Amino acid sequence: MIDVVAIGNALVDVLSHESDEFVETQGMVKGTMALIDTERAEALYAAMNPAVEISGGSAANTMAGLASLGSNAAFIGRVRTDQLGAVYAHDLRAAGVQFDTPPASDGLPSGRCLIVVTPDAERTLNTYLGASVELGELDVDPELIASASITYLEGYLWDSPGAQLAYRAAAGYAHDAGQRVALTLSDLFAVERHRETFLDLVEGSVDILFANEAEILALYEVDTFDAALQRVTGHCEVAALTRGEKGSVIIRGEEVHVVDAHPIPGGKLIDTTGAGDLYAAGFLHGFTRDYDLGLCGRLGALCASEVISHIGARPETDLAELALPLLPGD
Amino acid sequence: MIDVVAIGNALVDVLSHESDEFVETQGMVKGTMALIDTERAEALYAAMNPAVEISGGSAANTMAGLASLGSNAAFIGRVRTDQLGAVYAHDLRAAGVQFDTPPASDGLPSGRCLIVVTPDAERTLNTYLGASVELGELDVDPELIASASITYLEGYLWDSPGAQLAYRAAAGYAHDAGQRVALTLSDLFAVERHRETFLDLVEGSVDILFANEAEILALYEVDTFDAALQRVTGHCEVAALTRGEKGSVIIRGEEVHVVDAHPIPGGKLIDTTGAGDLYAAGFLHGFTRDYDLGLCGRLGALCASEVISHIGARPETDLAELALPLLPGD
Repeated sequence: MIDVVAIGNALVDVLSHESDEFVETQGMVKGTMALIDTERAEALYAAMNPAVEISGGSAANTMAGLASLGSNAAFIGRVRTDQLGAVYAHDLRAAGVQFDTPPASDGLPSGRCLIVVTPDAERTLNTYLGASVELGELDVDPELIASASITYLEGYLWDSPGAQLAYRAAAGYAHDAGQRVALTLSDLFAVERHRETFLDLVEGSVDILFANEAEILALYEVDTFDAALQRVTGHCEVAALTRGEKGSVIIRGEEVHVVDAHPIPGGKLIDTTGAGDLYAAGFLHGFTRDYDLGLCGRLGALCASEVISHIGARPETDLAELALPLLPGD
Repeated sequence: MIDVVAIGNALVDVLSHESDEFVETQGMVKGTMALIDTERAEALYAAMNPAVEISGGSAANTMAGLASLGSNAAFIGRVRTDQLGAVYAHDLRAAGVQFDTPPASDGLPSGRCLIVVTPDAERTLNTYLGASVELGELDVDPELIASASITYLEGYLWDSPGAQLAYRAAAGYAHDAGQRVALTLSDLFAVERHRETFLDLVEGSVDILFANEAEILALYEVDTFDAALQRVTGHCEVAALTRGEKGSVIIRGEEVHVVDAHPIPGGKLIDTTGAGDLYAAGFLHGFTRDYDLGLCGRLGALCASEVISHIGARPETDLAELALPLLPGD
């Protein structure tokens, strides 16, 4: 029995600290994700400061958070049979996530995400998909999907045609088995690239939607959060909208919860990478246990606060222990 | 003009946090380095928690520290043409270190060091040398060595026959050019493996010796620090002996300096990995500028305190700026 299975891009994060000027001269838009090709990946890497490698990938980070909370989590994603691929599989399994997608024995190398962390702790992502573009329908195990209460899908999947097919297949298997499908919009630019498709998905096949403020404004092409909130109500079953330090707003039908951000352990914001991913982990952990939606939001806020208190997008603390004070008694 | 050129093993550190029990059940001796083969490397890695990859290698860490202090530093070491090798070269060059050793296009993969960090911030190292065992005499550029004030050599080099030849060739080139040779004993077990050779080297070809307390006791087979101090006096020109929180003792002929440890920035010991490497960086930076030996020791202590205040064995702060208050006016 799996609580949540995710399909996503398998990416090793390569993090370095850089100045705001670096972000500008490299033509990046701070706080967003850009897809880059081999040539650009090499040039940017050459210009970057010494870096640290940590396994990442948005949906996989969420699964690592769920496993740390005590949920049964599985991940479907593609690496190659190379060193970064081995690192990726090790870290995900060592985090307690079931990961059985066979690595590709030829083709592009394992994907990576070059992440620039600026002095304001904001992160700017440059993704070289590599082997992740080869993810396809055949990687989706129908039995695994059918056995999971929720199938969690990245909006980023829409950046490669094979992954789109994997997405559609997985959503079909989940619904046929009477299970739910969750989607995260992933990134402002991902929404701009695939807006019409995302609107159709939210309308048609998504049961739980995750989005941050910029993404939900872009999806509905509106200027205020409240306008977006009015649009999303009734458009999908459940939506969890994150607003950074302003907290989050959760809707289910006409039920609305407004949840504050959780104080950061240690009091200092170090690196926002993974904030949305871990919010989704906390939320889904509560959701699969039928907790009150407000509590689901508080669990999300708690997990997000842990991951932004250190470098890296996966939890460094036992989240199950951290969450204990919030949970209902047995 | 190069201030210091180092020859060492090129290793990517793979760090994870583990319990004291893990260290015991894996049969490790806490605080030391063990050489491991491919099979053991795979088994240990499989048992480890999710990890972070950071370029390391003892002598290379020292060169990264020297570059951060504003010295001209170069490194000779061997990686393969693989992903970890590319990461290694990137990080070293991005740190400002000259690194021109061509990567091996076949043979063993790039070396790595599996590092277990226990709750007391102590680190236990498990080194898979990989491509580093192929380092040989031909990798040593005579002109580069002759142009450097100091050639810095790792005791770890004695673990591979080719590297021993590289060591001997480099020491010869340095002395022929009227330059100095420095040696770090590297590790207690390295001393036990190669004690007779190290005694000969210190007697014959080493001008500056670096050792920590355990290593110098093992070298002279004595029980007290003072006994070792008496033995090393007159045995080599200059010795810098580090004693953790007890500080360091430096001798040159009959001149002796006793230097305190530097307070840790932030007040918290996080990870001792690289403490000795960065002490050597600070010391050599001062030494190549003919600073008073006591000041060389204080610079070493300062750099060591920076690197133990965070995870990873290379500086995260601009050491030149950090050292400014200690330096003599222009």
